[in-house]
This record gives sequence, structure tokens and C-alpha cells, in this order.
Amino acid sequence: MEVTNKYVTVKTHIDGSSPQESDFELKTAALNLSVEPGSKDVIVKNLYVSIDPYQINRMKRVCSSQKLVSTADGITPGQAISAHGLGRVVASGNPEFEKDDLVVGLINWEEYTIVKGGNILRKLDPMGFPLSYHLGVLGLSGLTAYAGFVEVCKPKKGEKVFVSAACGSVGNLVGQYAKLFGCHVVGCAGTKQKVELLKGKLGFDDAFNYKEETDLKSTLKRYFPDGMDIYFDNVGGKMLEASVANMNPFGRIAVCGIISEYTGIGERAAPDMIDIVYKRLKIQGFLVIDYLKGMDDFISTMSNHLSTGKIHVLEDISQGVESISSAFVGLFQGDNVGKRW
Amino acid sequence: MEVTNKYVTVKTHIDGSSPQESDFELKTAALNLSVEPGSKDVIVKNLYVSIDPYQINRMKRVCSSQKLVSTADGITPGQAISAHGLGRVVASGNPEFEKDDLVVGLINWEEYTIVKGGNILRKLDPMGFPLSYHLGVLGLSGLTAYAGFVEVCKPKKGEKVFVSAACGSVGNLVGQYAKLFGCHVVGCAGTKQKVELLKGKLGFDDAFNYKEETDLKSTLKRYFPDGMDIYFDNVGGKMLEASVANMNPFGRIAVCGIISEYTGIGERAAPDMIDIVYKRLKIQGFLVIDYLKGMDDFISTMSNHLSTGKIHVLEDISQGVESISSAFVGLFQGDNVGKRW
Repeated sequence: MEVTNKYVTVKTHIDGSSPQESDFELKTAALNLSVEPGSKDVIVKNLYVSIDPYQINRMKRVCSSQKLVSTADGITPGQAISAHGLGRVVASGNPEFEKDDLVVGLINWEEYTIVKGGNILRKLDPMGFPLSYHLGVLGLSGLTAYAGFVEVCKPKKGEKVFVSAACGSVGNLVGQYAKLFGCHVVGCAGTKQKVELLKGKLGFDDAFNYKEETDLKSTLKRYFPDGMDIYFDNVGGKMLEASVANMNPFGRIAVCGIISEYTGIGERAAPDMIDIVYKRLKIQGFLVIDYLKGMDDFISTMSNHLSTGKIHVLEDISQGVESISSAFVGLFQGDNVGKRW
Repeated sequence: MEVTNKYVTVKTHIDGSSPQESDFELKTAALNLSVEPGSKDVIVKNLYVSIDPYQINRMKRVCSSQKLVSTADGITPGQAISAHGLGRVVASGNPEFEKDDLVVGLINWEEYTIVKGGNILRKLDPMGFPLSYHLGVLGLSGLTAYAGFVEVCKPKKGEKVFVSAACGSVGNLVGQYAKLFGCHVVGCAGTKQKVELLKGKLGFDDAFNYKEETDLKSTLKRYFPDGMDIYFDNVGGKMLEASVANMNPFGRIAVCGIISEYTGIGERAAPDMIDIVYKRLKIQGFLVIDYLKGMDDFISTMSNHLSTGKIHVLEDISQGVESISSAFVGLFQGDNVGKRW
């Protein structure tokens, strides 16, 4: 059977600024839904694809460090954009997968993806949860938050934790994990509605709207009069500088994302290194791909927390391949609440 | 017996610029060399005092993070300047110390120091080494280099190591330890003579004069075509930025000092956080005071290396209290080679 496959692509490399809908185009290509004899390809009907800020870096002319990470490497304008996603097998030449299997793995921002060899897919057992959870709270967003918070920040009960972009797909979970660990957690976000959500449903001890603040150093001093022990950084820039100034001795900063620097030129953080020495601070970048071997344990722990209502799920789902580019552009305008796909 | 005790002090707080000899003055005060009955004071005739760049931070109006570290807290203009040093006990009210004992600990930039209570002194067994070694290679400089390199950088055989201010009291030892660990090590310094010393006597694999380089990022690329695994940072600023750009995945940066930022305003490093994330780099500040419990083990290991000629000692000794201020000022002009006191 042949179908018309719709996919999203960038027209050209994006320069350093925020992405616009006009940077994208929806293209179509004929696709045969059967696998050629002898091929190990798996054809997947995509159900959910993840829409994450880091993709902007792949749409730019990529820097050398990105090239070291296959999933972060550059996107060729005109071609489909790979992303973590979830779908149902339509046809398979790989004996590990059968028609109608649910799978997660690297697919594309499109309706159907031919996964070469099929070996980067994983079969999915939904365990009674909504499918979308397996991309978010039980998927890479969840593991990113967990690995970054637990493995990089090494939290102790009673410690003071700050999370930026705290209503984002990763940030909201970091804050919730911090509460499970018995930490005091404050988050920041960019709208009043998000701040209310953090303090209400998500159980953060406090939250603020960074857009209403003029001096972030004083702001953090106000929310952490006794200093911060952990900063989970999703934004970089001025917030990172202000956090370094407010860290306690032996504080840990996990750098997960730097959205303020993805689209701004010359906005780099210049933290006070004298603070870093005298307070013996650690700043560490991390990527979820280094923690994939802990995925099964993570899913088992987290599904338990979900079943007992200890973790609240934030999702922001847009429908159809046509909506992907505007959903992505919106990430940089703070439109999203929780996980977006 | 009463003597005239000469001591060095700063006339006023130093502003952000490089220190000048005119910032200092030599003062005198009458001092009674006997301990009052009932007092636990120890009076020490100072033989060597350490002259380190970090003292400049204590002479400025100190920032809040320094106040957290007692040995880094501010110096009051007009008063004696505390520093690590070595001396001989003249009189003691503390039963742990007797007249003529050799001691190391916190004394002042002066001829005699009354150490209150005597409890921050440690009795010294010279073990047949020159006394000065116990302030340098077997003292805090040595332990700083060792703890920073071994505990923070966690070197593995064959890794590529870069050290800045590599002819300094700490840097020269880091490079030598790196060779003992089987690493490939390159250092930078500020004169041709120092570069020759690094490549010759000290056994660095290579070295360069940073003052002859215009683009540090390319310079490091030239010396580390396969990237750096470890950067031991004594200088901060542009060298830190260039290092982040040249680090390999999972690279570690130990921040020991930031001499470029001690005297310059607005010279802060703004490393590329995108590199820090994609390469999962760790930047960690440290202080030797957190590793003092390992001092005995360190001395035992290092005295062994000294006896077998595996470590070469660089010293730069100036004579007399009168010479301290010019020796200190010279540190910021790159005058010193190795440990200065």
C-alpha cells in the first residue's frame, strides 16, 4: 500500500535567533508501507513525537561538540527531523518486531517513519498508562530529570533546590522528585498561570515569575535566604550567574539545557569563578543518553509513583504533523506547560 | 625579652587592579617574647611565610563567598596579614609545643607571630628535607596540586592534561604528578625561560608562552589535536573559555585559582554552556582546606617521590620581611618561578 507521508522540515539553517513558523515547511512524499524482502527495516505509524528545545541547535549550523552526539547532530534542510517518539508497527522485516507492536525510539517529525534495521526501537508495554506517558514522565523527559537530579546533583534530604523552566517537560519532574527526596524546592517560570500550577498541583514549596523580576540575584536571595544547595539549570544565562552567587558551599549545578543561549547571541553566562572556588561549586553538563541503562529501573520506580499518585503529569499535546512547527516555535515563547509533542 | 617586630600590611583596601608596592607598608611594634602565665599562646620566630596570589582577594573588599572560608576572609588595613608559614617556637604556654620546636601553620607576614592558643600549629619533622619544602612541595602547595589533580580531576593513564600558570607553585607540581600518572601534559606560562623549564627539567611533554598567542582556542587545538581530558585551571578568563572549547567528552576542569580575574574587572570567563552540556563537562572549584585530613598520606607519598628524584622542586625565596611586598606584587607580573615566599 502506498500513502502520502507528511513531514516537517526546515527550509534552511536557522541563524542564532528564535525560530519562526516561516522557517519550516510541511512536505509530502510517497511512501510504500511494505518492507522489501530481505530488509530489516521497520515501518512505524507515528503516534507521538517529542518536541524539545534542543532541536533548535540541530537546525543551526552545529558546533563541533554537538557532532560528538549522534542524536544532536545537524539537520539537513529539506530532510525529515529525527526525534524521540512512539508509534505502532505497520510492517517489519525485523523478526523482533511484528505488525501492531507499540514501539518507542528515534523516529521523525512525520506521519510514518521507516526505521532502518529497526535496532534503535524498543517494544513498549503501556502498563495501563496513557501512551503519551511513555514519551514523557516514563520516557526520556522523565529519565533526564531523574538522572540529572539524582546522579548529578546527589540530593540529600532537607537540601534547598532551585529549578528553572520549572513548568517545562523536565523541570516540573525535577521539582516533584525533589519533594519526594524531602528537599525544599522553588521553581521559576514565565507566566502567572505556571507559577500557580507549580505552587498548587505540583507541590513546589514556592515559585516565581522571572519576567516580573529585575535583579535575579536578589530574587534568589529572597527565595533562598539560607542559600541554595542544588540548581537544576534549564536556561543558562543570567539565571545561572545569579544562582552561582546564591549557592551554598559544596553546591551542585546540573546543566540540562541552556534555552536562553540557544537563540540569543552573546548572552552567555559568565558566572563568578571566585564564588566557584571559595564555595567549591560543581557545574556539570549531562545528557540522558548516558543513563539509558538505568531506564528499566527508572520506569519501575516511576510507574509505582504514578500509580500511587505521587507524581502529577503535565502534558501539552498538539494534534497532527501540521501542528508541530507552531508547537516548536511556541517553546521559545514559553507557550508550553509540561511535556510537548 | 622585648623585640621590635616588623610586619607587612596594606594601607587601605586594594581596588580591582594589580597590587603596587605603594599599597603596602612595613610597620613595627614592640613585642614581648615571653608568654603570660596561664596563656596557651605560642610565640613563633617565623622562618618562611607563603606568598600566594589569593591574598589579593583578602586585600580587596571581600565578597560573601570568601567570608565563608576563615583563611580567605578580609584583611583589615593596618593589621598583620595571616599566611601559611613555618617557624621555630620561641616561647609556649601550650604544653603541646616547646621552645625550639619547628612548627607549620597560620602565622603572619612578619618576623614573630603570637599564635593564640597554639592550636592551629602542627609540629614539623623535617625528615631530612630543606625546611622550605614543608611549605611548598610537602606543604599546602603540594597538597593543593595533589588533591585538585587526583581527587577532582580523577586522572586516568594516557589522558591529556593541560595546566595553566604551569610554572607556579601549584601548576608545576600538577604537571609533574600528571607525568607520574602516565598522562600527556602540556603547560602554559608567561616567559620563554619558564617554557624551557617546563619542557626541560620538569618533564612536561610540551609547553607554550601564552603571551605569544593571539587565539587561545586555536593554540590549544594545536597542542591537543585529539582534545583535552583534564584542565587544571589556575587563571580563569579566556584560557578557561578556550579550554572548554577544546575539552573531550567527559572532561574535567578543576578550578584552583583565577588569577586573571583577581585583578581585572569584567574579565570573567563566559564558557560555552552548549559545549558543557554536549560534552558532559564538569567544572569544579576546590580548596585545599577540605583535604587536610589526607596530609599525612600525602607527605608520605611525596617524600618518597622526592627521595627517589621523581619530583623536581622549584623554589623562589626572597629574604626578609622587607622583601615580602615586592615579592607579592611580582606574582601578578609573572615574576615568580615555582613556590614563592
